[in-house]
Parts: sequence; C-alpha cells; structure tokens
Amino acid sequence: MADAEASTAMADEARPDSKTVQVLRDMANRLRIHSIRATCASSSGHPTSCSSAAEIMSVLFFHTMRYKQSDPESPDNDRFILSKRLSFVDVATGWFGQGLGAACGMAYTGKYFDKASYRVFCLMGDGESSEGSVWEALAFASYYGLDNLVAIFDVNRLGHSGAFPAEHCIEIYKKRCEAFGWNTYVVDGRDVEALCQVFWQATQVKNKPTAVVAKTFKGRGMPNVEDAENWYGKPMPKERADAIIKLIESQIQTNRNLVPKPPIEDSPQISITDIKMTSPPAYKVGDKMATRRACGLALAKLGHANDRVIMLDGDTKNSTFSEMFKKEHPERFIECFIAEQNMVSVALGCATRDRTIAFASSFAAFLTRAFDQIRMGAISQANINLVGSHCGISVGEDGPSQMALEDLAMFRAIPNCTVFYPSDAVSTEHAVYLAANTKVIRHSVNDKVTVISAGVTLHEALAAADDLSKEDIPIRVIDLFTIKPLDSATIVSSAKATGGRVVTVEDHYPEGGIGEAVCAAVSMEPDILVHRLAVSGMPRSGKPIELLDVFGISARHIIVAVKCILKN
Amino acid sequence: MADAEASTAMADEARPDSKTVQVLRDMANRLRIHSIRATCASSSGHPTSCSSAAEIMSVLFFHTMRYKQSDPESPDNDRFILSKRLSFVDVATGWFGQGLGAACGMAYTGKYFDKASYRVFCLMGDGESSEGSVWEALAFASYYGLDNLVAIFDVNRLGHSGAFPAEHCIEIYKKRCEAFGWNTYVVDGRDVEALCQVFWQATQVKNKPTAVVAKTFKGRGMPNVEDAENWYGKPMPKERADAIIKLIESQIQTNRNLVPKPPIEDSPQISITDIKMTSPPAYKVGDKMATRRACGLALAKLGHANDRVIMLDGDTKNSTFSEMFKKEHPERFIECFIAEQNMVSVALGCATRDRTIAFASSFAAFLTRAFDQIRMGAISQANINLVGSHCGISVGEDGPSQMALEDLAMFRAIPNCTVFYPSDAVSTEHAVYLAANTKVIRHSVNDKVTVISAGVTLHEALAAADDLSKEDIPIRVIDLFTIKPLDSATIVSSAKATGGRVVTVEDHYPEGGIGEAVCAAVSMEPDILVHRLAVSGMPRSGKPIELLDVFGISARHIIVAVKCILKN
Repeated sequence: MADAEASTAMADEARPDSKTVQVLRDMANRLRIHSIRATCASSSGHPTSCSSAAEIMSVLFFHTMRYKQSDPESPDNDRFILSKRLSFVDVATGWFGQGLGAACGMAYTGKYFDKASYRVFCLMGDGESSEGSVWEALAFASYYGLDNLVAIFDVNRLGHSGAFPAEHCIEIYKKRCEAFGWNTYVVDGRDVEALCQVFWQATQVKNKPTAVVAKTFKGRGMPNVEDAENWYGKPMPKERADAIIKLIESQIQTNRNLVPKPPIEDSPQISITDIKMTSPPAYKVGDKMATRRACGLALAKLGHANDRVIMLDGDTKNSTFSEMFKKEHPERFIECFIAEQNMVSVALGCATRDRTIAFASSFAAFLTRAFDQIRMGAISQANINLVGSHCGISVGEDGPSQMALEDLAMFRAIPNCTVFYPSDAVSTEHAVYLAANTKVIRHSVNDKVTVISAGVTLHEALAAADDLSKEDIPIRVIDLFTIKPLDSATIVSSAKATGGRVVTVEDHYPEGGIGEAVCAAVSMEPDILVHRLAVSGMPRSGKPIELLDVFGISARHIIVAVKCILKN
Repeated sequence: MADAEASTAMADEARPDSKTVQVLRDMANRLRIHSIRATCASSSGHPTSCSSAAEIMSVLFFHTMRYKQSDPESPDNDRFILSKRLSFVDVATGWFGQGLGAACGMAYTGKYFDKASYRVFCLMGDGESSEGSVWEALAFASYYGLDNLVAIFDVNRLGHSGAFPAEHCIEIYKKRCEAFGWNTYVVDGRDVEALCQVFWQATQVKNKPTAVVAKTFKGRGMPNVEDAENWYGKPMPKERADAIIKLIESQIQTNRNLVPKPPIEDSPQISITDIKMTSPPAYKVGDKMATRRACGLALAKLGHANDRVIMLDGDTKNSTFSEMFKKEHPERFIECFIAEQNMVSVALGCATRDRTIAFASSFAAFLTRAFDQIRMGAISQANINLVGSHCGISVGEDGPSQMALEDLAMFRAIPNCTVFYPSDAVSTEHAVYLAANTKVIRHSVNDKVTVISAGVTLHEALAAADDLSKEDIPIRVIDLFTIKPLDSATIVSSAKATGGRVVTVEDHYPEGGIGEAVCAAVSMEPDILVHRLAVSGMPRSGKPIELLDVFGISARHIIVAVKCILKN
C-alpha cells in the first residue's frame, strides 16, 4: 500500500495532471510579465534572457524542487544556482561560466559530507559553455558521480553581441555533455510537461550527473522580439512593454498558486565556529622546516579540531603538502586535478550555507588562473581560504612560470580579504588557525632603521640585522605576516621610533606588494622615507640563494640599503 | 610524371622505409639519453615526461615537420609548441593548458592572414586537458576549421601527484575531441610508423583540425621507472642514470642523421614597425564621447595605417566598440566568443614571429579571467595589446561583477607592461597609437595641491578644480594616463611645487592602483604627503554619478580632501 502510494507520487512528479500543467504554464507567463515590469522600472536588466527560461524556472520552483518558502537558507532545501546571469542565489555568478563549479561544490557537499537528500540545480546559458571553466566542472561532476546535480542549458541561441557558434544545434551540446560523462536529455524548453518528465528521470539515475539541454527562444512570447538579435540586456520601451504584457496576460488561464514540496530534513546539525587548535605549535627554536610543510601539518591538525574542515588541491598535493591533510582525513580531501578555476568555485560551493570550512591549495602562481573566481567569491561574501605555495624567485630552478611574483598584488586587491605571509613553521601554524577564525598577529624587534619583510626575505632581514649589529647599526625588523589588513599603527610608530627610516624587502614585483602597502600606510606622515627592495626585471631559473642576490633582495642588499638610507 | 613523383613522395611521408624507421627509433632513444643527462647535470627537470614523448618528437622533428635548421625563426617554418611543460619554443607555456590557445593563434594567422603553407604542431600532456582553457581552444579551432593545426595528446597516465582521472582510457580523449569537432586518431605513441602515418593523414583533411591521441608511458625505456608513480620532476640518481643510458644505448642500431624537409617559402613579406596614424585626432573641444567608443574608432583608423593590425573580442564587441574595427576590417577581426583565457592565448599566438599587431578587448573585469595567460605572455616577451572597458564603480547599474576595480593592480604587476588609462577621446586615440609603437605622454595644469587622477575621476578632479578656484584655492591636476611606466619625475616635481601636498583619486580599489603607485614614487622624498581617495568596501549596482559620490571619489570628496590636506 505504501509502495503503491509512493509510486503514484512518483508518477505525479513525472507526469503532472493537466490542471497542474496549465498552472505551470501560467506561472511561466507571470514570470515573463514580472521580468518586463522589473527591467522597465530599473531601466536595466535582461527581460529577453529571463523569458527564454520562464518555463524552466516555473517547473523547477513550483514542481520539481523541494524547499521551505519560509526559510530559503535551510540546509535541507534543494539548491538553485542561476549561472546564466547576475545572481545572488547563494553565490554571485555575474560573468559567465562560474555557476556550475559552485554547484559542483554544493552537490559534492550534499553527497559526501552532509550525506543528505537535497539536490542541486544549475541553470546555465548557452553562451557560457564557451568558457573553459564549464568543462572543468563537467569533468569534475562526472568523475565524482554527482547524481544529485542537474545542469540545465538554456540554449536560446543569442548572446551579447550576436549568435553563438553552436546556435540551435542542440546535438552538439548533447554530444559534448555525453562525452564528458553526463546523463543527458534534450527537451523543448517551452514544454512544461517534458521538463517535469526529465527532472523526474534525473532522480532515477545513479552515479551520474544529469544535463538537460533545453532548446529555447530569447524573448519568447514577445512579438518581433522573440529570437531576434540586438535585444541583449535591453528593457522594453514603455508602450511596447504594455502591449506585450497585455498579450501575455491573455494567455493566462488560471489563478492558482502551487506550493513547493517541503524538503526532507536530513542534513546533519553542524558547528563551524570557535574552532581551536588541539595543541599549541610544537616546534623548537632552531627547527628547520619549509612553511609549506608546516602548513600541511597545521591543516591536518586543524582537521582534528573540527570535522567540517575540508581541503581541496589541484594535482599539487605532494608539493603543497596538502597530502598530509589527505592522509589523516582522506574523506575530507577533494582532488580537483589541474583545473584551478573549478577548484576555487567548488570550494566556494562547499562553503555556502556554512556547511564546511574550505581550504584550497596550489602553487600561488597558479591561483592567478582563478582571479575572476576569487574576485566573485569576495563579492559573494564567501568565506574560503586559499593557500599558495612557491612564492617568488626563491622557488629557484623551476623557473619563472612557477614563481608567484604578483600574488600579493592580486590578493590585496580583493575586498574583505585577509592575507597572511608566514615566515616560519610557528607563524604558518598560526596563519592556518587564524584563517579558520579570522584574526590578526605580528612580531617585532628594535632600533635605527625599520626593516619590514615577510616570508623568505624575512630571514635575509634577520641575517642583515646580525651583520649590522656587529657594525653597531642596530635595526628593527618587522615580520609583516598579515599583509591585509595591514597593521598601519605598528608600521608608523616603528618608523617614527627609527628616525623615519624604513626599508622594505619582498620576494615579489615592486607593484602591489609589501613595499607599496607600507608606502601607502605612511603616506600621510611627513618625514618618513621608505626604501623599497623588490624583484624588478624578468625573473629566471636558478638556485634560490643566487637568485635572491641577483635580484637585489638578499641580506647584502638590505645592508647596503640600510646604510644608504642612514646617509640620507 | 610530376604527379607520379609527388605521389611517391606522399607515400614516403606516410610510410617511411624500414631504414628511416630505425633511424627515427634511434633518434628517440638519443633524445631519452639527452634528457637523462641534461636533468642530471642541472639536478632539475623532467626526464620521465621527456621519455614518454621521445618517439613523437623524433617523428615530428626528423620526418613530419618542414623547417630550416639554420633559421629556426623563419616565418615559413612549421611551428611547434611544447605545451606539456616549461618551454620557450615561440611561447613560454609553463603551467598547463596554455599552449593550444597560442597554437590556435599561429594556425589562424597561417591560414587566414599569411595564407601560407606552414603547419602548427602542439604537444600536450594528458593532465593539462583538465584545464578548461584547453576546451576553449579545441572549440575555437574546430569553429574556424584550422586544418593546419595538429594537437598531440601525450597520454602517459601520470601527473604531478598521482594518476589522472582518465588514466589510460584513450577512448575518453577520443570521444571528447570528436565531440569538439576534431578529426581524431588514436595511436600507440611508441610506434614511429603509426605516428608518421597519422601525421601524414592529417595533411589530407580539410577544414578540421586534427587531434592525435597517443598512448605513451612515462619513463619509457627505464626499468622500474616506466609507468611508476612518484617520479614526477625528478632527475635520476647518477649510478642509475648511467645504467639506464647504457641499456638505451644498446638499442640504438644506426648512426645516421635525418635532415628535415625545407619549408615552402610562401609567407608574405610584412612590416609592422613605425606605424603612423593616417590623420591626427579629429575631436573638437567640447565633443562628448565615451572613451570606449573613441577606442573603437581609433583602432579602426589604426587598421588603415597597417594591414597587420588585428582585433580580437569575446562576445562584447557591441559594448567595447571593437565592432567598429570589425566593420572596416572584417577579415582581420577574430570573434573568440565567451572564452577570455583562449582569447589572450590566441592573441599571443597571432603576435609571435611578429606576424601581426594584436589588440584584444573585453570588459576590463573579465580580463582577470586570463591573468595567468597575461603573466605568461609577459614572460614570453610577447607584444600584445589588451583593451579593457567598463572600469570601476562608474559602470553603474550592471553591478559589481562587471566593475573592474582590480585591473590596475593586476596589470601593474606584469613586468614590462605599459598601462594606459585614457580620460577622453583624444588621449584614447593617442593610447591606441602609442600602444602600437610603445611611447609615453602626459598632461598637467598648475598650483597649491597636486591632484593626480585618470579616467572618469579625472573629470571629477577638473570639476573640483573649477569650484576650488572660485574659493581661491588653485590646484594642479595631473592626468596620469600612463600608469606604467610611471612618470615619477613629474609627480615629484609637481608635488614639491605644491608644498608637498598630493591627493590621488581613482575608480579602483585602494590596493595596487594609482594611489599606491604615487606613494611609492614619492617614498624617498621627505615632506610629501599623499591623501588617497579610492573605492573601499564592497561595490554595488547604482547610477554612476551616485556611486562616485557614495564611494567617496566625486568632486565633492576631492574638494574636502584638498582642504583637509591644506590644514595639515
């Protein structure tokens, strides 16, 4: 009997009765009217793009998806990501091709961490499928068998400045999605019954994500606008809007509202606040350890402090030492392979609704690949933690492609971003701990010139301080550590205490890094001079210690700079 | 008779005689030995990755490719791009997935601009096919029917930190390449005869690029290293290297060298130096024009000055106004669709060997998508020109995802990069002209405080200057225009001439932009104060004029800052 009921419910879900079908059609038309009115009112927006997806939205929100209308943020709700355009549904997507990666992160979290029933739906435009990040996400989802994920391609043929390469050749999309391992359906995107059917079928498929390739028409239902070029991002003129709204209203036959099905409440209760390390740093003075190894150890330790700490990496785990985390918490490590854009988007998706504390690592230079994703992550106000190893020319033999010399400039330009630059094992462990909770720390020592540095060049500064003290020139050394937000008060007071003389040293280009940050911090103080040492010119491969000297950021150069600024 | 000779030559190319086959095998083994020796000597490098591709390299360089050994830079030579690892063959690839886009640019140039016989070969790793940029390039090449392009996938199964998702499932690669519209062959990558055959077959296929999926083994020919994990990027220990070299040497049967076939010399003679605009800027005082429209007009004009000027865009041509170039020079406009990483790589490929002067345009915010490609372009010392429109919060209603507020930080951190920030039509036209030739320009007026700005906020500075002059507070206004290299001398002398008082204003985040650049320029000068106005906090959508005021960079705020610094 229960079985029979369940199978009737299933049949209803696959094939709604004719009344429901009409209500879904009417809902779609009401959405069209709302999109025309809203974009007219704001004189900005995309009524034609909204129109092509109206039936898809109607079916998803009033038939397929399970969620509490009264609690849109509930962890049990199905997730929806509007990748095709500006959207703040969980993540800000904005420019194209970023939504599916975030959807992958949510689906991965649902399937493997929450082990819950909620499903994830991502509505994408056809144009954004030109972005490589979409194919990174498609490969990721099938590799991890994300059967709780549905991607809908709204193939309306027209883009920003003209038709897309594949136009309405739906078969091209189908072939590509299948080649990337997805269970794929082709539907008429205007047909609410067909949409109900495929969304139901998707629930029956195990270990494969589902792609729904929907043939649609931009400006659907708007005479002389439908499928016509040159309407991208343009609201309707007032009179035209009124006439079109009248026409669409005439097609609405019902006045009923549909209530979404409630979600299954099986997401675990979790807490990701107030995380404390299980023990203080256990390093002894004199211990030598690469900061990346200390980072791997600290992350593994943090994983014991909270079981929602997760780690992502892009085939660099043996170099970034994120493999240490993997060894102790294999079920919380996500190998993203060589696809940094997708790695950042997945981390973002995992972190939404505070379901996990996500750390993603790679060589710092390769994080440049994901600048747009990082930037949009900040706009989404997401809390993700990025770990970049192999900073600067001190990378040595591997050569310039692997040397991060622009990473500080990039991350400093991200709003609300905290940037740590640890110089030793203890500060690395602190950085990992603080990144999970967001706080600030610093170190300093005393005298005639203030030398400000971080990372590998901090040790050059300390060596310079030793030599200079023998010549009776004591200097104060500041380990900047937290590059952003900058501790301006300490910088200014130290500079004043050392006669307004400051030297900065960094294994980074002169632009956008420590030197400029310090110059900006003292810019309203008279009588403070800042002498900047940084990597100028094109980097090349070599032994780290030689490169530090060739590019003018070794202890020897710091000593010269200190003496020079003292003469000034 | 000539026909018979030609067909014999073709048969030879497809199926070399048994002696040649043995020489090609021997060449491959010699390459293996070289790679072991070179990486032992430098204690750095990738002998196992080199070994998997030894037969591919041997066949390409000593049988398939046509080039002059004495003149490797000849425009008539076939091109080779080593995408799978660090390489300086025409373009620096370094990290993964960048080679194929550049190869596309070279092949597009060969087919459509040079209309020449040279062919382009790109050797890729299997791991890098996880990068989305590879799929952007695959879609581009088939859309434009680049039948002079061959991509070879060296599928050796093993990556940096373990096996790749597809491992040795060659069929997955085949299916995906075919879905992306490529003529695809699967071969045993150790079989020189099979390689000769497919490379020849590729020459017979019209309007489709060819993919060769080669099953190979990392560390091929090295006992206990072949196909084993944990050998990534590791040179052999000395004794082991000696034993392996001995073993490989024992398999070499010949002592012959093969000479590559000479290229067909049908590339046109071109000149891309000393380009002059056909006429000076034709704007009158008081003309109002968006800088992006002026840029479109200037580029169209530059196109008349030299027929190797080309333009690329990513589905934004109606907003960036690159469509003006397209209208006048349709045969030199490349629509790259929504794939910014590939657009930059294609531009790089088009510009190699000085075959074109490439300009690529998009919204400046979307160029963040291609930071890694831009960075590697600089390391390749390529000359490409990137045009970013829609800077800062003054974009207005479109919202934060479309606002470039980190573009200056990004581009300033690129070595040897010139950054122009034009504020009006005339300076825009100059920027376009100068970008093609690389020079510097600036403007200024006189008095008590120096206000430094560029772009939209320059006009706020000028409005502030008008109002302040009525209150008898004359100020000097500097249009920075060339952000990099910075005209430090003018900044310092102006600052000194105005009592050491400077105010900077920019529609950019405080980090890495104009304010910090100016602070750094005056950092060694005592008694210069810099007050910085920039966009702090998270941007949002709104009317441009309102946003300038809300975010503190309007004329009103400049006036307050000037008065404030005068009191200091």
